[in-house]
Amino acid sequence: MNEYIKSLKNQGKLNISIDKEKTFNWKYTKIAGPCSVEGPEIIDIAKKIKSLGANAFRAGAYKPCTYPVLKETNGWKEGLREEGLDLLRRVKEETNIPIVTEVMDPRMISKVGEVADVFQIGTRNFQNYTLLDELGKTNKPILLKRGTWATIDEILGACERILVGGNDNIAICLRGVVGMPNYRHVFPTIRWAPDLMMIPALKELTNIPIIYDPSHSTGYRNFVKPISNAALAAGADGLIIECHPNPDESISDPAQAIDYSTLNNIFNG
Amino acid sequence: MNEYIKSLKNQGKLNISIDKEKTFNWKYTKIAGPCSVEGPEIIDIAKKIKSLGANAFRAGAYKPCTYPVLKETNGWKEGLREEGLDLLRRVKEETNIPIVTEVMDPRMISKVGEVADVFQIGTRNFQNYTLLDELGKTNKPILLKRGTWATIDEILGACERILVGGNDNIAICLRGVVGMPNYRHVFPTIRWAPDLMMIPALKELTNIPIIYDPSHSTGYRNFVKPISNAALAAGADGLIIECHPNPDESISDPAQAIDYSTLNNIFNG
Amino acid sequence: MNEYIKSLKNQGKLNISIDKEKTFNWKYTKIAGPCSVEGPEIIDIAKKIKSLGANAFRAGAYKPCTYPVLKETNGWKEGLREEGLDLLRRVKEETNIPIVTEVMDPRMISKVGEVADVFQIGTRNFQNYTLLDELGKTNKPILLKRGTWATIDEILGACERILVGGNDNIAICLRGVVGMPNYRHVFPTIRWAPDLMMIPALKELTNIPIIYDPSHSTGYRNFVKPISNAALAAGADGLIIECHPNPDESISDPAQAIDYSTLNNIFNG
Amino acid sequence: MNEYIKSLKNQGKLNISIDKEKTFNWKYTKIAGPCSVEGPEIIDIAKKIKSLGANAFRAGAYKPCTYPVLKETNGWKEGLREEGLDLLRRVKEETNIPIVTEVMDPRMISKVGEVADVFQIGTRNFQNYTLLDELGKTNKPILLKRGTWATIDEILGACERILVGGNDNIAICLRGVVGMPNYRHVFPTIRWAPDLMMIPALKELTNIPIIYDPSHSTGYRNFVKPISNAALAAGADGLIIECHPNPDESISDPAQAIDYSTLNNIFNG
Repeated sequence: MNEYIKSLKNQGKLNISIDKEKTFNWKYTKIAGPCSVEGPEIIDIAKKIKSLGANAFRAGAYKPCTYPVLKETNGWKEGLREEGLDLLRRVKEETNIPIVTEVMDPRMISKVGEVADVFQIGTRNFQNYTLLDELGKTNKPILLKRGTWATIDEILGACERILVGGNDNIAICLRGVVGMPNYRHVFPTIRWAPDLMMIPALKELTNIPIIYDPSHSTGYRNFVKPISNAALAAGADGLIIECHPNPDESISDPAQAIDYSTLNNIFNG
Repeated sequence: MNEYIKSLKNQGKLNISIDKEKTFNWKYTKIAGPCSVEGPEIIDIAKKIKSLGANAFRAGAYKPCTYPVLKETNGWKEGLREEGLDLLRRVKEETNIPIVTEVMDPRMISKVGEVADVFQIGTRNFQNYTLLDELGKTNKPILLKRGTWATIDEILGACERILVGGNDNIAICLRGVVGMPNYRHVFPTIRWAPDLMMIPALKELTNIPIIYDPSHSTGYRNFVKPISNAALAAGADGLIIECHPNPDESISDPAQAIDYSTLNNIFNG
Repeated sequence: MNEYIKSLKNQGKLNISIDKEKTFNWKYTKIAGPCSVEGPEIIDIAKKIKSLGANAFRAGAYKPCTYPVLKETNGWKEGLREEGLDLLRRVKEETNIPIVTEVMDPRMISKVGEVADVFQIGTRNFQNYTLLDELGKTNKPILLKRGTWATIDEILGACERILVGGNDNIAICLRGVVGMPNYRHVFPTIRWAPDLMMIPALKELTNIPIIYDPSHSTGYRNFVKPISNAALAAGADGLIIECHPNPDESISDPAQAIDYSTLNNIFNG
Repeated sequence: MNEYIKSLKNQGKLNISIDKEKTFNWKYTKIAGPCSVEGPEIIDIAKKIKSLGANAFRAGAYKPCTYPVLKETNGWKEGLREEGLDLLRRVKEETNIPIVTEVMDPRMISKVGEVADVFQIGTRNFQNYTLLDELGKTNKPILLKRGTWATIDEILGACERILVGGNDNIAICLRGVVGMPNYRHVFPTIRWAPDLMMIPALKELTNIPIIYDPSHSTGYRNFVKPISNAALAAGADGLIIECHPNPDESISDPAQAIDYSTLNNIFNG
């Protein structure tokens, strides 16, 4: 153990061993679904995705975009929002699949919590500390997405912030980061790069489960399968994948969404 | 104008020209102060810093850290919080210097707004969209700190989010980013790197004022003066600098805080 | 195919399909050995490593370091140099294992070529064009290490430079790159990060074999096995791994060298 | 002085103080010229650039490109090569301005040295150690361009490698690096980013002169002036700038070349 780690432990840090028996069954680790809820067809999508082996379903009722969306289209404006939550509630009723969906603000915890089985903290809110603090006071499972900038310290610190609130029912969702020599021109949709080394790095320091997101790691659907395989080979506990019946027509992030056949190939291939 | 910019403009984006006549007097651009309010001596510190030429005063009543601070020391636990706000109120009463301080949560806007002349959005909350939305509904000046990961799109998008709420009284605070070939071992306190090219890049697209933060760009006090000079030479409208009467004793970020003499040298040298 | 790729192809670029039948048998893809030849014990090391399943042996007779080594120790000064080549010749005589070793200068090609079955181009010489040009005129297999900075364009360009010389007997060795949010303090020996997405990215554009180097990707021996597994899962054709009988006593790069038992575990586990 | 620096100094490293009295007059610090020699008009270009205040002239006779250039056009194929050297000789005869030009291979030192007053080591050859070794044995001034990946250790190590050969007549040319959150789409020609913090960082450890290259830092001509100003403000000793009579028609790197008027503005504005 190096001096830095020792000094953190002496300060009472990094004792982030969780009791896996008591947590969400992270054997539920094949999470899939579209980027956001786009309409009532979400129910059929969920049925299909469950049939392909997913044991949890992801879809954003709230879907933050880089630029604010100024005009609502068929009810969608950075998500269907409340209508999206209603549709996710119906998904749950009809399929009984656990729902993973984003909560963006402490004031939304109660409402989103009526539908979500797992609260997703989005990458932009990775260090939204008042949100982390409030989620630490709940007892619902948390999927904490890594910020695209996060050092290993910052990941451990964000986890600890939730844990000290009393909720140790968490998993870390690793995803692409900024900074690497780029792929521009050749693969223009790539905005981030996977950082798969973070998997063994975290495994050396904590037993918090790690779910890998190949979609937001690659930005390009052809790479989703090889990076999924790589993440599991490196020790990830599970995957969360964006899948859409017609990927190119996905309202958000179409370039990275995969179709049912590719999902089937990843989950069962 | 390239195709991408054109397409954004056609979508009604990037029309982010503000009316500088109506905004906070960003000629108030020599902002300085300690990282956080540490106690009642903040009043004398503010007097001194004002005497050195600062025309706004910065100090966090709320000071988020990488790891949660588990134990309060003399009232300080990631800031003095409410007590810190009270002290900033006294600073304002006694010195009449405008106060720049961080607001971390929509629920704190009203309370922090009683003291702050400028709301600072911290780097971790750069894409905390519900916070940006709520601040867009106020009419108080906003200093939006760049996230350490932010691309130019993300900076423009975050600004637009505040502007569409109705508040165009904003300035962008540029600071260090992650990702560059590193300085580790040789300069071990460096965690980020300045990205001064963002100054002319933003100037080409928007007239939003740019305040440069050399302290959180360098992480090392010896580099604060040359990077301050460089930022102004590249076109920045102003500076925000961490200054402490005894830099090495600063509770947070001691390695980057400068002393009064260096501040004097930067502001008047 | 995107516009950029199309335009490259129209210029006669990116037609970098090689005839695998005619190339070095890159089924020889379990390459292992110490960072550099340190002395006559290299022969026993090679025998042991061959017995663990390696089908090629790596060791530098010439071993460039970040700072020049000013004093020779037991003949070693950035490698044993000519003496190192002599020892590698004995390794080949006694074990019959193919030798992969670095050539740093066009003027050394002939001498190194007497021993090397595969010329390794080191990361620092990834864009040493006169070296690439000269190696393109040989017909010996080339293992081209990625520069720590290389974009996908630069990798393809460096390959093409060798190919146009007439030698299409090449493989790309991917290794760690600079730029990602860092692991400093927590894992202080890490200097680079793996970029495993480059594997499927290159596979989409070329059939040149890809050998992955987990040692120079991680800088820390505990991560060598998970990253080896990940690279193969992502589609790499083979591995090149630093292995030393007493890793901590390795003259160069001790933190990333693995022992025999770990190598056995990776090759046969 | 930190532990790492101390240990380097104890090993005899980092004593890289040069005798400025004995070196090339790096007051010759306004270097400008086109990316490469394109034809006989280079003589008029040099006259004009000298008249604008440049005290050294840059132009590549050898101009390495990312992809090999397969077809010669009017004699140009990654430079005019020998013909380019002849033209630079004429530039010198007619203008008496010192010539800065790249040498790519130890075998070219003698030939290039007949024309060059300063040997430029290109960014791709920043760690081409046999080239550095040979140049260390000459007594001609060296302009060492930073590799786009180089950490501060690597810069110091590369300098030391030349110095230990006996030649302390060197300057470091800083230029853009890979890795930062990117500018893609919005400013598509940007391939690197300036790292101006390296200026004060090197100044703290060595007195080797620093020449800043804003052209290869920004990749976009509009940013050349603000980054030039910033580099000088941060402490750079001089500038090296790409300037072309008709920038958009420059054979290589047109997007970053500036015209005479902008150069005049930077040198005399």
